Amino acid sequence: MAGRGEFDLIAELFAPLATDPAALGLLDDGAVLPAGTDDLVVVKDALVEGVHFLADDPPATVAQKALRVNLSDLAAMGARATHYLVALVRPARIDDAWLDAMVVGLNADQATYGVSLLGGDTVATPGPLVLSVTALGRVPPGAALTRAGAGPGEDVWVSGTLGDAAMGLAVLRGGWAPPEDDAAALVNRYRLPQPRLALGEALRGVATACQDVSDGLVQDLGHIARHSAVAITVEASALPLSDAARDAPDARTKALTGGDDYELAFTAPLDRRLQIGGLARALALPLTRIGRTATGGGVVVLDAAGAPLSLDQCGWSHGWN
Amino acid sequence: MAGRGEFDLIAELFAPLATDPAALGLLDDGAVLPAGTDDLVVVKDALVEGVHFLADDPPATVAQKALRVNLSDLAAMGARATHYLVALVRPARIDDAWLDAMVVGLNADQATYGVSLLGGDTVATPGPLVLSVTALGRVPPGAALTRAGAGPGEDVWVSGTLGDAAMGLAVLRGGWAPPEDDAAALVNRYRLPQPRLALGEALRGVATACQDVSDGLVQDLGHIARHSAVAITVEASALPLSDAARDAPDARTKALTGGDDYELAFTAPLDRRLQIGGLARALALPLTRIGRTATGGGVVVLDAAGAPLSLDQCGWSHGWN
Repeated sequence: MAGRGEFDLIAELFAPLATDPAALGLLDDGAVLPAGTDDLVVVKDALVEGVHFLADDPPATVAQKALRVNLSDLAAMGARATHYLVALVRPARIDDAWLDAMVVGLNADQATYGVSLLGGDTVATPGPLVLSVTALGRVPPGAALTRAGAGPGEDVWVSGTLGDAAMGLAVLRGGWAPPEDDAAALVNRYRLPQPRLALGEALRGVATACQDVSDGLVQDLGHIARHSAVAITVEASALPLSDAARDAPDARTKALTGGDDYELAFTAPLDRRLQIGGLARALALPLTRIGRTATGGGVVVLDAAGAPLSLDQCGWSHGWN
Repeated sequence: MAGRGEFDLIAELFAPLATDPAALGLLDDGAVLPAGTDDLVVVKDALVEGVHFLADDPPATVAQKALRVNLSDLAAMGARATHYLVALVRPARIDDAWLDAMVVGLNADQATYGVSLLGGDTVATPGPLVLSVTALGRVPPGAALTRAGAGPGEDVWVSGTLGDAAMGLAVLRGGWAPPEDDAAALVNRYRLPQPRLALGEALRGVATACQDVSDGLVQDLGHIARHSAVAITVEASALPLSDAARDAPDARTKALTGGDDYELAFTAPLDRRLQIGGLARALALPLTRIGRTATGGGVVVLDAAGAPLSLDQCGWSHGWN
């Protein structure tokens, strides 16, 4: 290992991120959290260089993306995020400067999301960089949102806009060259997901089922359909698109099947519309009704004429949660 | 991905391991654990193919080692192990047969250690296999063992025997060829650590500081010396060696600096000797006094004549916990 050794790395870089006494200053074999009264929510997602981020993505955003996709899972369950742990699987090319920049990113996100580092591990690898994050959150007892509570005759909602991250990845891969400002906005959506934690918390007791859009809307709604045992119909014309994405030739397809959006898709009874509209205003976050649930199963997408669309590719799977 | 897809993998292979309702059948974005009354202990260690295990190690023991090194961290903190999560970073060569064998190993360990799978992630990689595990445990409020509680004038103890795993690795690498039975025993110690969970729990209120021996005895005792602000003197002649290891030319050095033993090293006041002797008998696990603490700092190893040994290599670092 070039540069700082393992223990210097911890003391200099990571220990300052471990601001909760529960982390024991990263000086021990593990962390010790008081039990509290809320339920504990635990999520774990790993990111691999070349699969979930690109080798030349900035170190800060690589670390932030690894953290944020986990925070997005907490948001989907209605949890308040509290802590995270990182296993840094580190090829030799990851030098001290890279690590310093990574910590700057994590530090900024700790302030943004109110979380702190609880522990982890750094290990050498002859392969690509891997960041495996575990995130912890809390919900009042029994209040966690799941994929299983939707009933027939409910609205299907989604936050923010869809397809931006997939278009950002297309830009980075040279497959598309929109105007510069749009390109930057789309790339930013790919590199820096916005976990909808405030929305997730606000949806406790409002949404009947919830899930983050990580593998593509249709595939992810499929989880809600399956685990809630309902059919879901999505109107393609209702999908929320960003200004930057609207003019892309395949905007609608990317919105339906593109991964990495990390918006929340959720179901709610029709009598919650007013309340959810109020939430959108309070959070300054678009919340759009994109479809309905019914008895039955599966996910169908309808075009503007009401005819079902055939989707060659219903999503892209890069993880199980 | 050849063979089963992501979701079949979860349903067929992993969901049967998720026996606690808290895991929500692995059907959701995360797991939801009731708060309980005990403190929660969280540990996270990753293993990389070619670094922490060999590419041709059996799939069952690879998975078991990944789980057990984490359980060993829980043991070092005096925790009762309850749950674990796995991120499986999977090269294409890891086929269905490999995964089936892996699950057999995890299933056996779940029965042995009373833990169950709580969640995780599987992702593709162009690089080596990585298993990143997070393990959870519980201790009564305030009862966790740490590295920081040792005082001067105490005994230093270690469980089991030392150096076996390093010798097992030497056997696997072709560097040493002991009699067949001994070779098998040593290789088994490298591949299948024995997390000392029962000992860790029994040491609550008995040990003043505790740590597992993962990177080598001298280096790991260094953590206790530093965090407890004491000096530690180890008598090389007191180190417990297994029958299989005793005749190796460098047995003593491997016992002092070899990694992967996953025994517990701990400190305790002198008036605990009788109680600790009773523990050893009750657990059928050798517990050996190997040295003493004093005012000062650092770790010194004395030879049989009482002269300090110089150690070229005070341990091998492959993780921060």
